[in-house]
Amino acid sequence: MKAFLPPTSYEYVTVHKVQGDDVREASDVLAAEEPLEIRVGYGPVGQREHRTISITMRTPGHDFELVAGFLLTEGIIRSRADLQGVLYCPDVQKEEERENVVRAELSPAAALDLPRLERHFYTSSSCGVCGKTSIEAVHAAGCPRLPPGGVRVPASVIHQLPERQRAAQELFEQTGGLHAAALFSPTGELRLLREDVGRHNALDKAIGAALFQDLLPLHEAVLLVSGRASFELVQKAAVAGIPVMAAVGAPSSLAVSAARNFGLTLCGFVRQQRFNIYCHEWRIS
Amino acid sequence: MKAFLPPTSYEYVTVHKVQGDDVREASDVLAAEEPLEIRVGYGPVGQREHRTISITMRTPGHDFELVAGFLLTEGIIRSRADLQGVLYCPDVQKEEERENVVRAELSPAAALDLPRLERHFYTSSSCGVCGKTSIEAVHAAGCPRLPPGGVRVPASVIHQLPERQRAAQELFEQTGGLHAAALFSPTGELRLLREDVGRHNALDKAIGAALFQDLLPLHEAVLLVSGRASFELVQKAAVAGIPVMAAVGAPSSLAVSAARNFGLTLCGFVRQQRFNIYCHEWRIS
Repeated sequence: MKAFLPPTSYEYVTVHKVQGDDVREASDVLAAEEPLEIRVGYGPVGQREHRTISITMRTPGHDFELVAGFLLTEGIIRSRADLQGVLYCPDVQKEEERENVVRAELSPAAALDLPRLERHFYTSSSCGVCGKTSIEAVHAAGCPRLPPGGVRVPASVIHQLPERQRAAQELFEQTGGLHAAALFSPTGELRLLREDVGRHNALDKAIGAALFQDLLPLHEAVLLVSGRASFELVQKAAVAGIPVMAAVGAPSSLAVSAARNFGLTLCGFVRQQRFNIYCHEWRIS
Repeated sequence: MKAFLPPTSYEYVTVHKVQGDDVREASDVLAAEEPLEIRVGYGPVGQREHRTISITMRTPGHDFELVAGFLLTEGIIRSRADLQGVLYCPDVQKEEERENVVRAELSPAAALDLPRLERHFYTSSSCGVCGKTSIEAVHAAGCPRLPPGGVRVPASVIHQLPERQRAAQELFEQTGGLHAAALFSPTGELRLLREDVGRHNALDKAIGAALFQDLLPLHEAVLLVSGRASFELVQKAAVAGIPVMAAVGAPSSLAVSAARNFGLTLCGFVRQQRFNIYCHEWRIS
């Protein structure tokens, strides 16, 4: 395993391997899953408040990128400048919990206030609960429609993405099962790959890494996700400005509606020299 | 498609199918994804209050089972008697949102109060954020450890589960990708199968269906989930009393710790006459 994943990303266990009627004991490695509490600090200097805004089950590693990506794709920050700092919360007493609580300090200019957070997390019924209003809510949170023009991606590049992603997935190699989100150039070069037990976390980590590297908006990127394409993943990609998203699995109906609406090219079932294009097919040449 | 899935479970779209360099237009069917708002009504007669406790992205269909299963596996109800009724919320104005808001009326005896809900959803830092405390929280919410003894399941039965599940998955057949949770007898007969874009929803639907059929606790059931085994899925299975859980994919480290702790037999990578047993292997003969 390469050095940059922390040892807390995986765990060794003894298992019973069954093949037909045969059983033998063997050592195996599992992807780690631990809760991560995300806290934000906000408000003017001298009157800072801190608040827990999410608890997610994630694979430890790249935690600050996960938090930054989450805050961006959920519309809580708009740019890197809105983030003063990210740290493991020093207030946590227990040693074993210290790396499971991350605090993001928002800049005073981020103008974040309690009512906005409240609106974000405890949706009132007035905001509506249907696919259409879910899409409208993302627009309302500041996600622009992608402009026409920009990148074109050859179909031959899309065909190659899953193999290139798999080759770079170090934790998957060991554990046999983790979600991944990978960002490629329009010619198919791998720029960034992140892994997690949760597919939304893998994408938040990749987008957070891009944020820290000042690569946003990702108007030149092609995203591949390892599983299915859900509404939530399309939303996160759109907020990051990604024009082309491909999934190894199937998209949902709302993922397609959202991609259509945000101006994002969505491909699915990318496997064995085949794939489907669900909308904005003009970017695939 | 069999009749019992509502037409809102899937959607027809036109796609561009790419094979190598070749492109053609074709019709395709997608699994639907729509938000579902879960509200609960509680408190003594004459002073009922209603509150939104969750919004989840789900595939429409079996919504009342989803809500009942969610309330049970999250520890909000303990039995069917705690549930007075489940209905599409009549207060919702817009036609297109009506089937996306479900209200569960809790019985006064359920003794549910606002502070308990608060504790449930806005975890305070005092409750701890690490794998160990996550497991303890499930115990504290009333999930007993499975008793020793009970069912034994032949390895040959485990080998057959994925094929039997796949044969019964009607939406997967059409859409090429949906999560499923299936309950089998210890001899491998399929009792119940539910599908959803979210794997936790598929399991909540199956457990909710079992609740409505008075099958709880599921001390005789073998559960197969289509994807990976996460902590959340193991927790839900344990609350429902399921002694044997098998996954087509890999488990996470915390899923294994939780299964070990709850006394549940956990199998993973069930495919092609092979599988791994991660704990409590004595139930597999």
